[in-house]
Amino acid sequence: MRIRIYNARILTMEPDREIFLGEIQVEDGSIVYVGGEKSEAGDWDREIDAKKNLLLPGFKNAHTHSAMTFLRSYADDLPLQEWLYNRVFPMEAKLTPDDVYWCAMLANLEYLSSGITANFDMYMKNESNARASVDTGFRTVLCGSINDFGGTVEEIEQEYLHFNKYHPLISYQLGFHAEYTTKREILEDMAALGKKYQAPVYTHNSETANEVEGCVERYGKTPTAFLDSLGMFDYGGGGFHCVHMTDEDLEICKEKGIWVVTNPSSNVKLASGIAPIQKMLSKGIGLAIGTDGPASNNCLDMFREMFLVTSLQKVSLMDASAVDALEVLHMATVGGAGAMGLQDCDVLAEGKKADIIMLDLNQPNMQPLNNIAKNVVYSGSKQNVKMTMIDGKILYEDGVFDVGIPPEEIYAKANESIERMKRE
Amino acid sequence: MRIRIYNARILTMEPDREIFLGEIQVEDGSIVYVGGEKSEAGDWDREIDAKKNLLLPGFKNAHTHSAMTFLRSYADDLPLQEWLYNRVFPMEAKLTPDDVYWCAMLANLEYLSSGITANFDMYMKNESNARASVDTGFRTVLCGSINDFGGTVEEIEQEYLHFNKYHPLISYQLGFHAEYTTKREILEDMAALGKKYQAPVYTHNSETANEVEGCVERYGKTPTAFLDSLGMFDYGGGGFHCVHMTDEDLEICKEKGIWVVTNPSSNVKLASGIAPIQKMLSKGIGLAIGTDGPASNNCLDMFREMFLVTSLQKVSLMDASAVDALEVLHMATVGGAGAMGLQDCDVLAEGKKADIIMLDLNQPNMQPLNNIAKNVVYSGSKQNVKMTMIDGKILYEDGVFDVGIPPEEIYAKANESIERMKRE
Repeated sequence: MRIRIYNARILTMEPDREIFLGEIQVEDGSIVYVGGEKSEAGDWDREIDAKKNLLLPGFKNAHTHSAMTFLRSYADDLPLQEWLYNRVFPMEAKLTPDDVYWCAMLANLEYLSSGITANFDMYMKNESNARASVDTGFRTVLCGSINDFGGTVEEIEQEYLHFNKYHPLISYQLGFHAEYTTKREILEDMAALGKKYQAPVYTHNSETANEVEGCVERYGKTPTAFLDSLGMFDYGGGGFHCVHMTDEDLEICKEKGIWVVTNPSSNVKLASGIAPIQKMLSKGIGLAIGTDGPASNNCLDMFREMFLVTSLQKVSLMDASAVDALEVLHMATVGGAGAMGLQDCDVLAEGKKADIIMLDLNQPNMQPLNNIAKNVVYSGSKQNVKMTMIDGKILYEDGVFDVGIPPEEIYAKANESIERMKRE
Repeated sequence: MRIRIYNARILTMEPDREIFLGEIQVEDGSIVYVGGEKSEAGDWDREIDAKKNLLLPGFKNAHTHSAMTFLRSYADDLPLQEWLYNRVFPMEAKLTPDDVYWCAMLANLEYLSSGITANFDMYMKNESNARASVDTGFRTVLCGSINDFGGTVEEIEQEYLHFNKYHPLISYQLGFHAEYTTKREILEDMAALGKKYQAPVYTHNSETANEVEGCVERYGKTPTAFLDSLGMFDYGGGGFHCVHMTDEDLEICKEKGIWVVTNPSSNVKLASGIAPIQKMLSKGIGLAIGTDGPASNNCLDMFREMFLVTSLQKVSLMDASAVDALEVLHMATVGGAGAMGLQDCDVLAEGKKADIIMLDLNQPNMQPLNNIAKNVVYSGSKQNVKMTMIDGKILYEDGVFDVGIPPEEIYAKANESIERMKRE
């Protein structure tokens, strides 16, 4: 497939490169040209007039549990413990591999409609999840999720080896659910596994104050400090949420190159708190953004997350100048790619993967054009996503999905899954 | 115009009425039937198969400054005072009546795309604003905005009389900018004007901690208590923002029937704070939601506001069960109509104005259908707005505007305005 998109405003997200008018050429899944407009004739499968709309790298959803779409709006406005123990866990116990397949596919559709071109997914039944992404053409980085209730370190190692040569769209990072759900012995084995493969390790970290207190009681250390003391982050890694972090925790993140993946919608809706993003930024910690799963958020919308990343800092620090919108756009694209090990999908440049989105500027919420990049962060919405391309293939365009199966069939399957589980 | 919309899920927003499958009939701007499906033949101008999508009353944007679209993304990430005094005020001084006309029209397009069917607009050059709404078919309640820098109480009285018989789509409520911008003599005259017409009076109230402190210094009372002591709210009225409210303030709101219009996006982005909505609700104070103007927010999107109304309460109270989503949906529709004096636009029922929206449920973010109303609040987006009808006329449908003028012309005019102002 050879595609040329011309007459486009282009935001490559390379350092210090301003938006310019030009074209992008894509061949066999990769970007082969980004620059000023060319008029040469070519043997294109498609030439697209972008009508001065904006091309930028696809958003990277750096923490989610995709298949939890089945629980969307199933249990809201409940205290956290009731939500988790009485509503989420009992339903999850009923999930079949087929449920995960269809519910992950539903999430993939929503990602496409929000300009998200890759997800970092921590959930169960990874084979179903991987298959859903390959079948829809979506790019997924799976994350290990071992804990005391499921999985062995051997299985994590097998998954690591299996999914990292599964398909070009799929990769896998070592991970475990969280310190508070995983006994010390497993944690030590996971740290050893990270060292064996010289690989980063990822986990939920310091999402709630409660979780941090528990760890301090158990081990006399915060989760970040305790896990680091096991050598967990000797080859980097990342923490999902990182809401309740001490200054010492942040020093460890900086020193060990631990990515922080923030999930602001989930953190406010579940009353977990507000992560100290401004402080992390000023320390130079790598930052990425995730939606968390649809059971908590409830939607998979990078625009909502971007607005919240900056505005929650502003209100919590009482400083309207905290966290510039352009920093947020960096987290949602380049930062996410870095956190997920997708360095070949981070910016729009020759040789990079063609994971590209087009945002419609000819909508009232994008006008006037005082500052296009800030418009995206502060005023953008799913409505502005005109095209989502992954690996050089256009999977979503002008509201129409091209994922090999009609969306209505996916909706029907997801509804069947949850209805069956309610009956069981 | 006679329109029939059938095969629809209908959420009338009447008390205790669940969503049901049926149809709505509209004639000459009013709803003439809401109920189960009818099969009788009729002389319809249009029959619309809703395909089981959701009909509900249009959202009411109960506080905004529409024409400030010209400043969207013009001055973000700045401290509040610098933003207001160095960026906003100098540009506003250059506004012509034509600028206000086109920039209000741009806002009206965005309202339509967000399912907003009426706005409560406090700004300058009201004649331009009213004309923009009449020309686009939009419903606008103008709000007086007198302060020490502009307007006289006589002019407010003239506007009140003028705009309340201007056009069926336009009405007007008495108002002044804020206590901190308006000297005591004017405030006393405004209170007298309210009494003369037995009319409610509206104003910005307790948006920032600073504003409250200033009032306490000047008058020994909070803004709410001070204004109330002048008899300002003897016939009710409303406060925009109401972020920093004492328990005594809330008692006054309850006693005098003062509406609270909350603007959460603006309050977080400008670092003003988080209004105590849960407390207001438990006291039975009337609540409505506004976007505030696009210079502060930056977008005019009721979905963003709805999510924030509840999630900011959850995080600030550390209680994931605070402010049920269904309460929020009530604020965004019935509450807004009550605050704005649009009681004939509040619910879907016979005799009410046909201000109706259709939300697309056949989108991934609305699936599965565990709880449709909660889906709207927690997962909804502009992308789901399939149709916006005001006064029985469809002004927006499947992404296409029908407002008598091409959107591109409105975008061009708004860009011309701001570019001229930057040059001047």
